[in-house]
Amino acid sequence: MNLIYLDNNATTKVDDKVIKVMMPYFGEKYGNASSMYEFARSASDAIKAAREQMKYFYNAENEKEIIFTSCGSESANLAIRGMLNMNKNKRHIITTKVEHPCVLNLYKQLEKEGYKADYIGVNSNGELNLEELDEKVNSDTALVSVMYANNETGVIFPIKKIVEIVKAKNPETKVFSDGVQAAGKINIDVQDLGVDAMGVSGHKFHAPKGVGALYVNSKTLITPLIIGGHQERGKRAGTENVPYIAGMGLAAEMAKDALKYESTEVKRLRDKLESGIIKRIYNARVNAGINNRVPNTTNIGFEYIEGELILLHLSDIGICASSGSACTSGSLEPSHVLRALNVPFTSIHGSIRFSLSRFTKEKEIDYVIEKLPPIIEKLCAISPYQDELNALKKLKGF
Amino acid sequence: MNLIYLDNNATTKVDDKVIKVMMPYFGEKYGNASSMYEFARSASDAIKAAREQMKYFYNAENEKEIIFTSCGSESANLAIRGMLNMNKNKRHIITTKVEHPCVLNLYKQLEKEGYKADYIGVNSNGELNLEELDEKVNSDTALVSVMYANNETGVIFPIKKIVEIVKAKNPETKVFSDGVQAAGKINIDVQDLGVDAMGVSGHKFHAPKGVGALYVNSKTLITPLIIGGHQERGKRAGTENVPYIAGMGLAAEMAKDALKYESTEVKRLRDKLESGIIKRIYNARVNAGINNRVPNTTNIGFEYIEGELILLHLSDIGICASSGSACTSGSLEPSHVLRALNVPFTSIHGSIRFSLSRFTKEKEIDYVIEKLPPIIEKLCAISPYQDELNALKKLKGF
Repeated sequence: MNLIYLDNNATTKVDDKVIKVMMPYFGEKYGNASSMYEFARSASDAIKAAREQMKYFYNAENEKEIIFTSCGSESANLAIRGMLNMNKNKRHIITTKVEHPCVLNLYKQLEKEGYKADYIGVNSNGELNLEELDEKVNSDTALVSVMYANNETGVIFPIKKIVEIVKAKNPETKVFSDGVQAAGKINIDVQDLGVDAMGVSGHKFHAPKGVGALYVNSKTLITPLIIGGHQERGKRAGTENVPYIAGMGLAAEMAKDALKYESTEVKRLRDKLESGIIKRIYNARVNAGINNRVPNTTNIGFEYIEGELILLHLSDIGICASSGSACTSGSLEPSHVLRALNVPFTSIHGSIRFSLSRFTKEKEIDYVIEKLPPIIEKLCAISPYQDELNALKKLKGF
Repeated sequence: MNLIYLDNNATTKVDDKVIKVMMPYFGEKYGNASSMYEFARSASDAIKAAREQMKYFYNAENEKEIIFTSCGSESANLAIRGMLNMNKNKRHIITTKVEHPCVLNLYKQLEKEGYKADYIGVNSNGELNLEELDEKVNSDTALVSVMYANNETGVIFPIKKIVEIVKAKNPETKVFSDGVQAAGKINIDVQDLGVDAMGVSGHKFHAPKGVGALYVNSKTLITPLIIGGHQERGKRAGTENVPYIAGMGLAAEMAKDALKYESTEVKRLRDKLESGIIKRIYNARVNAGINNRVPNTTNIGFEYIEGELILLHLSDIGICASSGSACTSGSLEPSHVLRALNVPFTSIHGSIRFSLSRFTKEKEIDYVIEKLPPIIEKLCAISPYQDELNALKKLKGF
């Protein structure tokens, strides 16, 4: 049975070209990039080249604005703590209710450490309440952290406008944007956005798990999270992960160059999947608005049935999708993102995220559209909500 | 020209078997280990197996005592900050003058945050002053951090005895040991040593750069350094680096099983190199005592000449060695470790570390013994210390 992998927001297949570029740095050019002899030069050259590639990816002004890290979570922790540590007398911080746990849980911890935190809400389309944000920024606001795109719904936040709102109220307030779920899906241009810092994770755009890149504007000072050697200009200690850094550099370049394909072909397949499901399954509804989303993601609620059961049946026929973030899986709580969108309780437990990639094939989408309706029908038949399902069926004209 | 790599304390070649075990997790079994579907099971199984291998490597009691990290520096930062955060009313910390920068620089930062730190010295053999340690531990001592083996001299510290001294003075004091340079060179048995936490880095024992494993005794509580998802039981957020974790697991198992070879064959080659140099080069002296060292390391001072020039000449003929830690390279300061040993100024600038591995061949050692004396002779000829060199030559009977 072939695998149909529609969980690319959880992680992606490493591109063969990326594997190829990494390979020599394991067993041949294995020098420590900080070593001074000739043999180590190919390692330091590889990092230098990758830094240029990440500069291109971010459209950063200077390659010194790139800090290599081990993941998106480390990038967010480094940026947020790093900027707050440089500005310790300001004690107010703002984020959104729909951030990834690496921001949300860090904010909860910062509250325990004495920060006052505000969490901005979203409407049922998943759009951020910009008036609320505007009201909350004040002279004590040290930091605002808003993700570029949401991992569960795919909704894109208007970062450029958010930066303008924040800086108009308080020019000293720093803005971090978690770009993990935007990377490789929409163009990232940190100069145009005006953010002070932004982080991405390699494994969301076909580089391996365990490497990330943080952009920090050259005018913005941060303290290191991992203290030690002089690596990354003193901002991140630890022997450089040469193979993964080289791999992520290439993956970032390829992702940037594939954005046109992403916004046309991947989007076409995502839209086909989404409308195919909505047309065929009467108790399906799209969570979040269908505009302003990254092109690869759709989050669909199946009313009155259990998401975990749907996933189990999909897994049985080789289809990988998810009920939310892999970083919160194992939890019995419904998704904090869908709760923030006020997704009705009748569909929040039956919500499934499908996330495509540039490797997704049309026949895979066709297969899902064919195989999903009978699975949902079977699960509806054993649902305790028969009256509601029948009423819904009639209402939708099925 | 063949490469003769004698800088294995900086980093190591990834073992072919390790590369082989990692490969499937890039482009085939690339699931997120936290995902719930069948396809991701091989990823979570790989991590489970690696955790067992690291348990074996450390001789830990329970595999839950293993936390996967991105490097040795992260392991040290996580352990030290993590234990201190759980015991905030104690404000005294102790370490040694010869620690790796990931401990020393972190201690400097902790001093800025209000901790009182003591730095225990070593004698000219590189041995720790245990009386001084005993005197310094008091009722306010939260943490003692002592490396298991020094990266520059190879000197092994008596961790078991150190733990006994510390706990006798204050049973509440936590002991962290940076095991990075002991890993793969001498046996690690955390239960016998009695440490509360110990960290290792994969790339020092033929796994790739960018992965580490921290042991934390199950009775010891720590806060996470990277906050976010539930990975590593809430102690280290971030999508698991499946390939590297699997690779490190195998590398650790192989390293443990190769300890006999390390303590016999690698030691024999190290001793041959060391005595070959001392016998042939009159201005060479071994830094640190020759007992109680890891079997692969020798640090030799060449009096009255410049270490960087020696390294350059060695690099020209394909021999990789170093003047100290790669993590401090680029600095013009002489090594803080050799300064702590009171290595005379006449040889501290001309000190070279040779570090072997189980891949080092006898003919490589023979080659270095043959090629090094004429290099040193050439450099002595241009040294401004001709009178001193002549006196030394006569004294040594050359």
